[in-house]
Parts: sequence; structure tokens; C-alpha cells
Amino acid sequence: MSKRIITISREFGSGGRYLGEEIAKRLGIDYYDKEILVKVAEKTGLSQKYIEQVGEGAPHKHHLSYSFVGRDSTGASMGDYMDTIQRKVILEAADKGPCVIIGRCADYILRERTDCLNIFVCGNEKEKTKRIMELYNLSETEAKKLMKETNKKRRVHYEYYTEQRWGESCNYSICLNSSDIGYEKCIEIVCDLAKN
Amino acid sequence: MSKRIITISREFGSGGRYLGEEIAKRLGIDYYDKEILVKVAEKTGLSQKYIEQVGEGAPHKHHLSYSFVGRDSTGASMGDYMDTIQRKVILEAADKGPCVIIGRCADYILRERTDCLNIFVCGNEKEKTKRIMELYNLSETEAKKLMKETNKKRRVHYEYYTEQRWGESCNYSICLNSSDIGYEKCIEIVCDLAKN
Repeated sequence: MSKRIITISREFGSGGRYLGEEIAKRLGIDYYDKEILVKVAEKTGLSQKYIEQVGEGAPHKHHLSYSFVGRDSTGASMGDYMDTIQRKVILEAADKGPCVIIGRCADYILRERTDCLNIFVCGNEKEKTKRIMELYNLSETEAKKLMKETNKKRRVHYEYYTEQRWGESCNYSICLNSSDIGYEKCIEIVCDLAKN
Repeated sequence: MSKRIITISREFGSGGRYLGEEIAKRLGIDYYDKEILVKVAEKTGLSQKYIEQVGEGAPHKHHLSYSFVGRDSTGASMGDYMDTIQRKVILEAADKGPCVIIGRCADYILRERTDCLNIFVCGNEKEKTKRIMELYNLSETEAKKLMKETNKKRRVHYEYYTEQRWGESCNYSICLNSSDIGYEKCIEIVCDLAKN
């Protein structure tokens, strides 16, 4: 495999996580999503739930609020500390062998490597809303609100740590609109690119 | 073919135009790039060179300068007028049959259709610079300058007419980094998506 590491950034509701799981399964490679949280929890002694809330995974809170509070005497916040540990976990995972890594600015963290395929998955409003309603058992209004909040949080987190624009095509190898293209075709395209 | 119309927006130097030509050839469908200029010239009586300068095709001039000068008594500028004619030409081309259309906000102009595959082609700085140096016989400094100016012009033109962000992944069906993926693979992916 010429591209050993596949990073997947994704809009909430676009099915990016599902695509990542399927791609890892079909290529027979490691998959890192919540697995990263577990490792960060091990290294820091903090609870997974807390890490999830401070990191990009939590849909309910706004990242910026963490950027300006809870700083220690060096000026580092708890968010900065956890991102440092998470960065190490991601670098170690990539060194270990071929894998799929979901979110967490992995495309940026691994930017010095030449064996990464960086994917961004987006989707159309209607299809994303439908998916969120089904997955989280929410009303349309609730799903749209959660989608807006979660994407805002992911955007702010990504842009704070990378100084790049989240979802801007030039930051990725390929961006796929899963509503237009379909999940199966997205999986096929990425698996094919990873193999060739 | 389920997606009859393929629109290709592209960063200057990414090879987007070349990809479009090859895709049209392999799918055996019409190709519109300068062909649109010819039709706009026919309809307006203006010279192709002038149209190219005012439109998004010209790499040397900044679009905004046209937005505020040369307005007639209704407040419409020559740029607005030509964009109206160009819009009609693009709608007619899409109605006529399957085709590839390069640039000119075609993705936005045809947004009401459900049979469009909207592509954005980007690339890495190094590869794009090299391509521009070779194609236009320029020094590295000249190529970088031309690239910056042309992309700025395309961005401003697109954002002025569409109120969408140029190169933002969610505005397209698929975005391809031709430096990462390679021209041949980009062509294969798009032809396959158009056929299936």
C-alpha cells in the first residue's frame, strides 16, 4: 500500500466515521477513533468523558470557551495539554502501521509524512439531517441544531490548532460529498486510492 | 449516464482544464471552455479577447476593478451584462446534452439541475508552479505571481456571482488534489462517477 495512513475529517452527519470503519475493515488495517481517547485517558489519568468534552469529539460545547480558561502558570490550558498528548498518540499510531484515523486534526499532525491520504467527507443538508435524526433519535429541529453546534466546534478546534481552514479542499487529497456520491462509491474510491 | 453534466472548477496550474478535456474525450461528450467565449462573442458582438479579460478567464486583471466601473444607467456593468449572456450560453449547453463545462461558475448556474457532477481540482504549490513554468515558459517567480493573481481573480469572480466560497468542499460533489492523486486517477474517478 503506497498510502499507509488514511485520515478522515468530516462534517457531522456526513457518515465520515462509518466510511472510515468500512475502509479500515476492507483494507484490513487499524482504525482509530475512540481508541485515541482511551490511549489519551491512559496517559493522562483523565476520564474519557472529560477528554471527549474538551476535545473535538463532543458536540455540545464550544471549544473557544476552553481556550481561555483553565490555563496553568505556563499559560497552557487543559485543552492544550490534552492536544499535546493526543498528538503523541496519533504520531505513535501512524508509526505503528497502516491505519485509518478519524478527525482530531490528524491530517495536520501527520503533515510531514508522505504516505498519508487525507480525506474530507461532507454532505448535503437534507441527507445529513436525516442521518442525525435516525442515529440520535432526534426531531428535525434538534438534529439541525446539533449539526450546527458540532460542526462549529470541529471547525473552531481544527482552525485553532492548524491555522488552516476546515473543509477547504486544498488541505486534503480528496473531498467527497457522500450525499452526491453515495457511501459505497466513497468507500471504493478511497480503498482504490490507498492501494494504488 | 446518470450525471449528464460535469462542471470543473479549478485552481490555476492544477491541470483542471486538461482533466476536463480528457474526461470529455473518454466519455464522448461535448466540451465547453473557450467555446463559451465564442458563443458569448457571437451573441454580444464583443471580441473574444475583451470577453476573456472581463470574465474569469483572464489571469492578469482583478475582477473587482470591473465591478465598480463601466456601469450603465441601470447600474449594470459590462461584466454583469456579459455574465448574463454567459449564463444563458451555459444553460443552453447543458440543455443540449451531456457535456463538460470548465469554470465560469457553471456549478452555481446549473444548481437547480439534479444531473450535475460538480468537480473542484486543486493541487500542491510545488507541482502547480512547475506546470505553469512549463506551459507558459515562465521563471519560478513569474509562475508564482501569475498563479496567485489568477486564483485571486477566479476566487473573486466566483464569490461575487455565487455568494459561495470558491474551493470550499461542500460546494462540490468531489474535490481532487491532482498533485496527490495524479491526473490519470482523477480522470478515472470522474469518468466512473459520471457513468454510474
